[in-house]
Amino acid sequence: MEKIKLDKNTFLYPMPMVLVGAIVDGRANFMAVGWVSRVNFKPPMMAVALGRSHYTNAGIEKNKAFSVNIPGIDLLEKVDYCGIVSGEKTDKSMVFDVFYGDLSVAPMIRECPIAFECRLVNTVDLPTNSLFIGEIVGAYSEERYLMDGKPDIKKINPFTLTMPDNNYWEIGKNAGKAWSVGKNFDKGAA
Amino acid sequence: MEKIKLDKNTFLYPMPMVLVGAIVDGRANFMAVGWVSRVNFKPPMMAVALGRSHYTNAGIEKNKAFSVNIPGIDLLEKVDYCGIVSGEKTDKSMVFDVFYGDLSVAPMIRECPIAFECRLVNTVDLPTNSLFIGEIVGAYSEERYLMDGKPDIKKINPFTLTMPDNNYWEIGKNAGKAWSVGKNFDKGAA
Repeated sequence: MEKIKLDKNTFLYPMPMVLVGAIVDGRANFMAVGWVSRVNFKPPMMAVALGRSHYTNAGIEKNKAFSVNIPGIDLLEKVDYCGIVSGEKTDKSMVFDVFYGDLSVAPMIRECPIAFECRLVNTVDLPTNSLFIGEIVGAYSEERYLMDGKPDIKKINPFTLTMPDNNYWEIGKNAGKAWSVGKNFDKGAA
Repeated sequence: MEKIKLDKNTFLYPMPMVLVGAIVDGRANFMAVGWVSRVNFKPPMMAVALGRSHYTNAGIEKNKAFSVNIPGIDLLEKVDYCGIVSGEKTDKSMVFDVFYGDLSVAPMIRECPIAFECRLVNTVDLPTNSLFIGEIVGAYSEERYLMDGKPDIKKINPFTLTMPDNNYWEIGKNAGKAWSVGKNFDKGAA
């Protein structure tokens, strides 16, 4: 079928949905973020791309630290609230129960099944966004979210984001084993 | 409940699953990638973090271009195959029907509901990975994947990845409207 050109400002389908935490103006602040990825294997690193105008950015730059928190779907309203309301005008430090790991300036969310504390190692200044690259110095969970010691997505129950239609989506059925189902692919029949 | 420390090499839940395309040694090559994110709003940019040893990297560096292709679940076996087999040993140029947009060196996959062609604008050398940042110069789809002119995730039918359990997951039910359901959050009751 014929390909058509979309707006260049097209998004990934789907985007992960996390809360990025930082200390800003002396208090914990959390923003909803869909532009996030692991970026280095060893040492483990995570990156978040935040619009330059965000209140959170100054806190990350000042303290050289941030957190990435993966919420379960039970936190949907609170996550969306953190995406609607700026910390500049509204104190979001009481929305969640905050805890800290090895860094004293990377506030993490106790209600989130997975939380990462990251030490800022690099900032890439892009035209409208700052790409903050952090080394993961700690990753936290609870026994109830694990299976055989590994995080279990069905227990975490995260959700994803699509834009510009602005919808959240649950995780669906298991679709197969990675680095395995491809062995069935018959190259000769391609 | 008590927080426990996980391996620092913990992943996002879930990760998007894309195929990154490049011309390597004169032919189209595609690798399966879960470390991908939009990173700049205007101009629109996308980043992929590839392990330094990957065959694809030299092609991206040489041609200053790559593609990001979002596969539907009907391509699961082929995507996983591209994650198992290195282009260094196996010619993957015939696995998909390849098309090109404005760049002649960013091979895209006709079978993928969404494809982006990206011009390399920055490479961030991290300890074990190269973070390739590309400006999106074209985004492509087909009418059958759109609703009111916007990509529709239920028509795209993408899948996501979890590691280290190595599973693929379908997209589930709609969970609410972004930048909207948070208005229901009663801060006073938090």
